[in-house]
Amino acid sequence: MGAAEWAAQESEEWAGVSPDAARRLVSAAVEAFAERGYHATTTRDIAGRAGMSPAALYIHYKTKEELLYRISGIGHEKALHIMGAAAEAAGSATERLRDAVRTFARWHAEHHTTARVIQYELQALSDVHYAEIADLRRRTDRLLRQIIQDGADSGEFRVGDVPGTTLAVLSLCVDVARWFSADGPRTPDEVGALYADLVLRMVGAPPV
Amino acid sequence: MGAAEWAAQESEEWAGVSPDAARRLVSAAVEAFAERGYHATTTRDIAGRAGMSPAALYIHYKTKEELLYRISGIGHEKALHIMGAAAEAAGSATERLRDAVRTFARWHAEHHTTARVIQYELQALSDVHYAEIADLRRRTDRLLRQIIQDGADSGEFRVGDVPGTTLAVLSLCVDVARWFSADGPRTPDEVGALYADLVLRMVGAPPV
Repeated sequence: MGAAEWAAQESEEWAGVSPDAARRLVSAAVEAFAERGYHATTTRDIAGRAGMSPAALYIHYKTKEELLYRISGIGHEKALHIMGAAAEAAGSATERLRDAVRTFARWHAEHHTTARVIQYELQALSDVHYAEIADLRRRTDRLLRQIIQDGADSGEFRVGDVPGTTLAVLSLCVDVARWFSADGPRTPDEVGALYADLVLRMVGAPPV
Repeated sequence: MGAAEWAAQESEEWAGVSPDAARRLVSAAVEAFAERGYHATTTRDIAGRAGMSPAALYIHYKTKEELLYRISGIGHEKALHIMGAAAEAAGSATERLRDAVRTFARWHAEHHTTARVIQYELQALSDVHYAEIADLRRRTDRLLRQIIQDGADSGEFRVGDVPGTTLAVLSLCVDVARWFSADGPRTPDEVGALYADLVLRMVGAPPV
């Protein structure tokens, strides 16, 4: 996939943000936070990247924290949605876990810039916003844990420590955002397929 | 482990830095970078945390980047050392991989603040310094890959994709630094033991 296609994919994730100016600001904020960190970025920097004045930014977002909260909310909702689709699909625990890991890891590769920002800048959220995001994270975690528990209960999986294994699987997928590079040797699809195989081994699913 | 013991463990890692003032500066810089990010931290902030003047800082480190490079170098040398000790130990590939993952994951739990800084601020290093650190990372990666390759060659492991599995194992251990909390339910030793078991499953080692 070329750089232009990647850029298109990264911006597509903000398609639900309107009007257009608000969307451009969200996209500019993600770039700025990823490059310099949240605390080193000013609303002036963000407005400049979006080709707007600080006053125009203020119409859409009163504070820099509000932008981070918006970005974090969209990203975490998407992660929860991916996990929910896999958890609620028909099929065995093995099939659901394969699907969950494949799509979750792939998302963290495709949207690695956004995923880095939302993972590494959590502590910059206000207490109220953090509590909301933490709830989305707990729900995502619970969905994955339930798939693993279902497989343990049905005898498909052999898992000694369900919460610990759930944590490790989430962690493995999230960290794709740190190391993934669009210039690297693996596509997001390939990462998803590899990780699904490795995770089925982690839970002791029989080899296929 | 209480907060005081954790603080002692975190500062112990800088024991090789002398004189005392340089060591205090390194420790203060890690804290500041972890809290606010590299770009939002000034040398004045670091000097202040260390109870020193900016002029006193300048005697030991000419730039903020030099401090980051020192921190990154010590952390990456330690990671390489841990991996080297496991790779070069006597024993089967299974034993060496267990030991490598247990100690590498545990280090990332014990030194999670430092590990976050060195992982997330890599791009802030100068080109020359980055090249040096990248070499340490490649050497660490190669040591782990060799253990996994040895196990595949001897028939102890069943691994389809040695480089991909190596990447996933390193990633799993490194990401401990992101989620680990000293207030959480698991000790660094417990994380190390859990992860060693999960990784032996990932490489298809027979259950013990």
